[in-house]
Amino acid sequence: MNILFLNGPNLNLLGQRQPEIYGRTTLGDIEAQVREQATKAGVTIDFRQSNHEGELVTWIQQARGKFAVIVLNAAAYTHTSVALRDAISAVEVPTIEIHLSNIHAREEIRHRSLIAAVCWGQIAGFGEKSYYLALQAALQLKPS
Amino acid sequence: MNILFLNGPNLNLLGQRQPEIYGRTTLGDIEAQVREQATKAGVTIDFRQSNHEGELVTWIQQARGKFAVIVLNAAAYTHTSVALRDAISAVEVPTIEIHLSNIHAREEIRHRSLIAAVCWGQIAGFGEKSYYLALQAALQLKPS
Amino acid sequence: MNILFLNGPNLNLLGQRQPEIYGRTTLGDIEAQVREQATKAGVTIDFRQSNHEGELVTWIQQARGKFAVIVLNAAAYTHTSVALRDAISAVEVPTIEIHLSNIHAREEIRHRSLIAAVCWGQIAGFGEKSYYLALQAALQLKPS
Amino acid sequence: MNILFLNGPNLNLLGQRQPEIYGRTTLGDIEAQVREQATKAGVTIDFRQSNHEGELVTWIQQARGKFAVIVLNAAAYTHTSVALRDAISAVEVPTIEIHLSNIHAREEIRHRSLIAAVCWGQIAGFGEKSYYLALQAALQLKPS
Amino acid sequence: MNILFLNGPNLNLLGQRQPEIYGRTTLGDIEAQVREQATKAGVTIDFRQSNHEGELVTWIQQARGKFAVIVLNAAAYTHTSVALRDAISAVEVPTIEIHLSNIHAREEIRHRSLIAAVCWGQIAGFGEKSYYLALQAALQLKPS
Amino acid sequence: MNILFLNGPNLNLLGQRQPEIYGRTTLGDIEAQVREQATKAGVTIDFRQSNHEGELVTWIQQARGKFAVIVLNAAAYTHTSVALRDAISAVEVPTIEIHLSNIHAREEIRHRSLIAAVCWGQIAGFGEKSYYLALQAALQLKPS
Amino acid sequence: MNILFLNGPNLNLLGQRQPEIYGRTTLGDIEAQVREQATKAGVTIDFRQSNHEGELVTWIQQARGKFAVIVLNAAAYTHTSVALRDAISAVEVPTIEIHLSNIHAREEIRHRSLIAAVCWGQIAGFGEKSYYLALQAALQLKPS
Amino acid sequence: MNILFLNGPNLNLLGQRQPEIYGRTTLGDIEAQVREQATKAGVTIDFRQSNHEGELVTWIQQARGKFAVIVLNAAAYTHTSVALRDAISAVEVPTIEIHLSNIHAREEIRHRSLIAAVCWGQIAGFGEKSYYLALQAALQLKPS
Amino acid sequence: MNILFLNGPNLNLLGQRQPEIYGRTTLGDIEAQVREQATKAGVTIDFRQSNHEGELVTWIQQARGKFAVIVLNAAAYTHTSVALRDAISAVEVPTIEIHLSNIHAREEIRHRSLIAAVCWGQIAGFGEKSYYLALQAALQLKPS
Amino acid sequence: MNILFLNGPNLNLLGQRQPEIYGRTTLGDIEAQVREQATKAGVTIDFRQSNHEGELVTWIQQARGKFAVIVLNAAAYTHTSVALRDAISAVEVPTIEIHLSNIHAREEIRHRSLIAAVCWGQIAGFGEKSYYLALQAALQLKPS
Amino acid sequence: MNILFLNGPNLNLLGQRQPEIYGRTTLGDIEAQVREQATKAGVTIDFRQSNHEGELVTWIQQARGKFAVIVLNAAAYTHTSVALRDAISAVEVPTIEIHLSNIHAREEIRHRSLIAAVCWGQIAGFGEKSYYLALQAALQLKPS
Amino acid sequence: MNILFLNGPNLNLLGQRQPEIYGRTTLGDIEAQVREQATKAGVTIDFRQSNHEGELVTWIQQARGKFAVIVLNAAAYTHTSVALRDAISAVEVPTIEIHLSNIHAREEIRHRSLIAAVCWGQIAGFGEKSYYLALQAALQLKPS
Repeated sequence: MNILFLNGPNLNLLGQRQPEIYGRTTLGDIEAQVREQATKAGVTIDFRQSNHEGELVTWIQQARGKFAVIVLNAAAYTHTSVALRDAISAVEVPTIEIHLSNIHAREEIRHRSLIAAVCWGQIAGFGEKSYYLALQAALQLKPS
Repeated sequence: MNILFLNGPNLNLLGQRQPEIYGRTTLGDIEAQVREQATKAGVTIDFRQSNHEGELVTWIQQARGKFAVIVLNAAAYTHTSVALRDAISAVEVPTIEIHLSNIHAREEIRHRSLIAAVCWGQIAGFGEKSYYLALQAALQLKPS
Repeated sequence: MNILFLNGPNLNLLGQRQPEIYGRTTLGDIEAQVREQATKAGVTIDFRQSNHEGELVTWIQQARGKFAVIVLNAAAYTHTSVALRDAISAVEVPTIEIHLSNIHAREEIRHRSLIAAVCWGQIAGFGEKSYYLALQAALQLKPS
Repeated sequence: MNILFLNGPNLNLLGQRQPEIYGRTTLGDIEAQVREQATKAGVTIDFRQSNHEGELVTWIQQARGKFAVIVLNAAAYTHTSVALRDAISAVEVPTIEIHLSNIHAREEIRHRSLIAAVCWGQIAGFGEKSYYLALQAALQLKPS
Repeated sequence: MNILFLNGPNLNLLGQRQPEIYGRTTLGDIEAQVREQATKAGVTIDFRQSNHEGELVTWIQQARGKFAVIVLNAAAYTHTSVALRDAISAVEVPTIEIHLSNIHAREEIRHRSLIAAVCWGQIAGFGEKSYYLALQAALQLKPS
Repeated sequence: MNILFLNGPNLNLLGQRQPEIYGRTTLGDIEAQVREQATKAGVTIDFRQSNHEGELVTWIQQARGKFAVIVLNAAAYTHTSVALRDAISAVEVPTIEIHLSNIHAREEIRHRSLIAAVCWGQIAGFGEKSYYLALQAALQLKPS
Repeated sequence: MNILFLNGPNLNLLGQRQPEIYGRTTLGDIEAQVREQATKAGVTIDFRQSNHEGELVTWIQQARGKFAVIVLNAAAYTHTSVALRDAISAVEVPTIEIHLSNIHAREEIRHRSLIAAVCWGQIAGFGEKSYYLALQAALQLKPS
Repeated sequence: MNILFLNGPNLNLLGQRQPEIYGRTTLGDIEAQVREQATKAGVTIDFRQSNHEGELVTWIQQARGKFAVIVLNAAAYTHTSVALRDAISAVEVPTIEIHLSNIHAREEIRHRSLIAAVCWGQIAGFGEKSYYLALQAALQLKPS
Repeated sequence: MNILFLNGPNLNLLGQRQPEIYGRTTLGDIEAQVREQATKAGVTIDFRQSNHEGELVTWIQQARGKFAVIVLNAAAYTHTSVALRDAISAVEVPTIEIHLSNIHAREEIRHRSLIAAVCWGQIAGFGEKSYYLALQAALQLKPS
Repeated sequence: MNILFLNGPNLNLLGQRQPEIYGRTTLGDIEAQVREQATKAGVTIDFRQSNHEGELVTWIQQARGKFAVIVLNAAAYTHTSVALRDAISAVEVPTIEIHLSNIHAREEIRHRSLIAAVCWGQIAGFGEKSYYLALQAALQLKPS
Repeated sequence: MNILFLNGPNLNLLGQRQPEIYGRTTLGDIEAQVREQATKAGVTIDFRQSNHEGELVTWIQQARGKFAVIVLNAAAYTHTSVALRDAISAVEVPTIEIHLSNIHAREEIRHRSLIAAVCWGQIAGFGEKSYYLALQAALQLKPS
Repeated sequence: MNILFLNGPNLNLLGQRQPEIYGRTTLGDIEAQVREQATKAGVTIDFRQSNHEGELVTWIQQARGKFAVIVLNAAAYTHTSVALRDAISAVEVPTIEIHLSNIHAREEIRHRSLIAAVCWGQIAGFGEKSYYLALQAALQLKPS
């Protein structure tokens, strides 16, 4: 069983950027943690980041048949991308929407998620732990 | 460590009501599962349901000093209750907002959560598993 | 065949309150009339009032299997309660929404009914006669 | 006592058109039923249909002094005609607004009734039975 | 010089309908007054009323080359007819929009005029005198 | 195979009216062109215009069983007529919505089409050629 | 009989400013014309202009008992001044709202008049002639 | 003369909850102060708190004939309860709306008061002193 | 201790203007009452009125260091003046917003206060008594 | 004569993705068909797809002087890209907006086209045939 | 070459008022700096402040023919004054809109500038340096 | 001291595109001018353009520690990119938002800047001179 973790724009800066909101852990730290937990659970992961909407769209498209679940932290594109929404609809791989911060408690422009309507579920506000919870959620699809 | 699970209006009907949206598991089934997982993790839980907004408010108020975390499935009151929001703000116990269904993918009136802005984080859309993920999230606060 | 008549907040004041809008008949008068007509038609009724949203929710839940139709004058909760809406959806008993006054001809805040979308139909504006018309409507479900 | 039943655009297609919403009964069937019930009740009815907003306006105007009540299914014009609203205001004959379907449970554009504010009351959602209930409501004005 | 006075839906009821808003003068009285004043001023008028949007559209279309000015009391169609707006744009005859009542001081739905943007000017609120003022305005185009 | 071309209000003025937007070709010219192309393609057409919403509604209703496709330039009624929308839904003949101008590039009030949601497709902005393209689209339904 | 003509901000520039919208006539020219016509009609006028909202408010207040009618071209303050609205309500002198241009045909921010709801009527779009028409309207109150 | 002081949800927490907004005085402290001032002024008070909307509605209903004034701090229900509004309208006892904080200076959702339109007046922002000012206001109704 | 009472546009008309809303007491009467009560309390007051937004702004600016509290009835400027809001922010003298009528119960345009967000508190709806209550509120700042 | 066909995000999945909305034909199939029809008509085409907004912008920019017409299926970017709109404005090559599905009949977020205002016309809802109709439209610009 | 610097309400308080937003420099300091830089550049300036909207309007009107450029910091009137907008349109002197703070990053009510649409350009957010940058911008119009 | 000038989509077309709005100067011309002025001032610049949102995001991220100021003309992405906003927040390099045209005076969709809230200031409307003014603004940060 393979799980694809996709990270959107500016998440490569994690740990440097506004630590009062996002914490000091880097994306590399998170990837390491997720990988370790995944290994324990007997699944493999792929973990990528891009600042390009188009690249994220392509990666989602290519997930078909290769990944059982997509965990997507679309960051800023959550609020502006209909293309990501269409890619998720098209690929028909269950997708979990995650956010480091509680987007519902931030500025107005972050309240609306354009992708939520086509995702399996949403986990938001637990910092890096949003990733680990998403892994737990994904593992439920693992055939025993 | 104690965790308080609160369930809002109509959740007592779980398993009977619109199974295509909410599944066939009853609230009792979920409570049993949560309790079992909590026991394994060495924490105790309290698990309640009420159709009364005022009773939920009172329970949240009383959590102070007794519970380390509140897991709240406010159901319909999510969208209409400022009183719950005020209670959460007042009690200063970290609160996790959960939903069985992905509220962001349903009717317009379910898109706005009045309590999100004062909660720690949100988990929505994983059916009964939203409860288990919330337990996982809560356990992170457990002193080792 | 049993029919449940539920009355929301402040309807216990009927006959005292703003008679230019609601008339001078009391809720007791209406109950008596409805009961008389029901008896003639060979059906039994239950007739209740509550100021508590949660109590109305519970009564609707309990109607399952006991009542063939619910006639609901939700009064002020018509415009603010998603919990009533969910209860009606869940109980799967045909529900007729009634109003004494023509809510569509009053203040803006009374134009939107949160429960209309899950009710069988709506009768509004005929004063106490809204109840009798609802009884007529309900009787059509009576097995002959 | 005379009662005028007016039917707006496309109601002449009743029974052919989207039966999953409107049922299979034709407008002629309804007229026959209404007429039979009216005869029993000792009142006469006039029953008309037009696709023309202007014609409906004229018929309402002419009702003055000839009809005790108007029962109006304005169909699509419910949502777009200020002219019908003005005609009802002007004619000063009590008017009952009816709808086959529960307009409050359909698309957004059918939620607003431009005529509701000047009607006596509204009956919506009971299919053809909306007509019979309106007749019952109208009969209450019959001098005994 | 010819001037066309067009009157929209329900204006045929003038003098009977809601006299507290529209006064007791009939449309015939107004026509007589306008005609008398027009004769004094050496111009001829045509004075018509229709409840049909389509007929008003056609009359406006036919004004081209025959009338120097159109005085239009579109009544309820003021607020709902894009077709009248297009007809006025197309015919290229200066059109004066008039209203008996001050539409800006009435219900919200009467505040927006769909035809104002293509009219020469607007006179509203002077009762029947709105017609006489419009005649005065129109006479300014009379070649001396 | 028969195709019905329906034209809404003010289109009879085509060629005279605002030529900078609509061009100088008359509706008669367009009809002749459409007829010629239809003849070549071996289909017959009916080509009508009305300023009356009600008449257009009636023509659409009568298309059932007589025409394989309706090509509808509803002009101003595009934006204000729920009755046309209902007629198209009811008649169940595939309907192509056309516009001479690109309505999406004009004033705000022309951006919303009330009929689009029930039409097969939309062709807008190509002047008279919108008609010929619609004919091409319609021919695809021709049984070979 | 005295009539007060009040002119709001920037009207002192009339004749210089954007002549394609407002024409080349100066406010002095208009005053002379109004005065001449008033003299013929046997009434006296007072004619003032101010750029200060507060001064216009004061002038309206002082009109009580001295003027039979106020003709008010509030210019930009039409759209932003609740203080003028209150002054008109308070003074209880019939007030005619006038505009040189057709405000309903200009930018969105000029569509809403805050004073219309408390004025007798509105005349807009006839350039300087709006003043003369207002004088005609005012003269109807002249005791003969 | 009796005055009823009603306190809505979460006010029982006063003094513990968000002291930077609400201060450190408890509801008991306020009651003691109000009682002392009332005694000096020769009036009696009743002072209650509830987290239940329905209970507050009932208490308002029962005030009729027993209390000369109601002082209502509806807290969160200020913004969500039409039922309280209806109760105040019905009971016809002058009601003073109070708030500890200046609700107009807080989050958007606290700007709209659903009860203001049926209250005598509003006092907001003076902390516990809002209660004492309300008492002063109420005393003006005391027969001397 | 000095207290500055400022009164906005049209308040000079008090007692003459719409007595059904504002009562018959003049601004002079109120000033006399406030002065008498202030003298008893051992404080001095300054009491002014202006129809000019700019003058009110200047008076507020000049209050710094001279007055301990400002009591401001901004009347119509409450709803339209950002300049008053900025002046209050800048002067850093606690400001009490008062209104004779309950602005929340009047027309929509009076519901939004642009100054509330920077004021200490709001007292509205008690007629002239709003002034006396504001004095009571202000006295709490008096050093004993 | 050269025509540029540009395809936006996710159109490379055509034939796999939600066939109930988009059909089973692949983008390659459509390209082959368009090419064949173009060859018959004596014109050449270029046919491209990209998931990158920036790449589509660049391709539009480069069309200047090389292509007589652009046919653009912007897919999801239709609703979110001002950059595409600016590119179309800048390049001054007539651009035809096409859509496989009738965007006006789908979810709210697909109703607004940001590019429509700068396109020549729009063809939507005819599935793959939208491409062939666009080719027909484009051919009208072919010099004979 | 003359340049007119106009300053709106409350800017006379600069240096005292909310220094965390506006800094400690006074308007006099800024004037001195601007004057020094202007002298070096060989141009003369006029530098004024008023709290009165009407006075600012008048000063703008009088700029015609005397000043080559107006630099306008309208402060609070930026968001509420259509009169300033009209004055700028009328005077036809290029006007530069400046702001000390970045109005786009502050409260909602400061996001909309009513004057921006008629200004040459906008400089906002650079504190006192916004004035010097505006001087640089203005100098570009200086004939060499 | 280094300054980074970033240019968004379609700015590579400058000088060709809609010269009535943007002028005839190319981006190369502007770069040359900026470079010359920078050299005189003793600072170095980097000057780039991209049509890709993701590339602009990456460039902003990389500015950290290398550039003292970013001057950003985000063009169309100003209105649609939350990703750019997040990048600016994250990089913590003071950023000046510039626009060639006065975006506040153009179409509605260009009025809202998603990046303004996180920028130092905004300069808009001075054509190519917006760049030179931004350079002047940036130089103020140069250590002397």
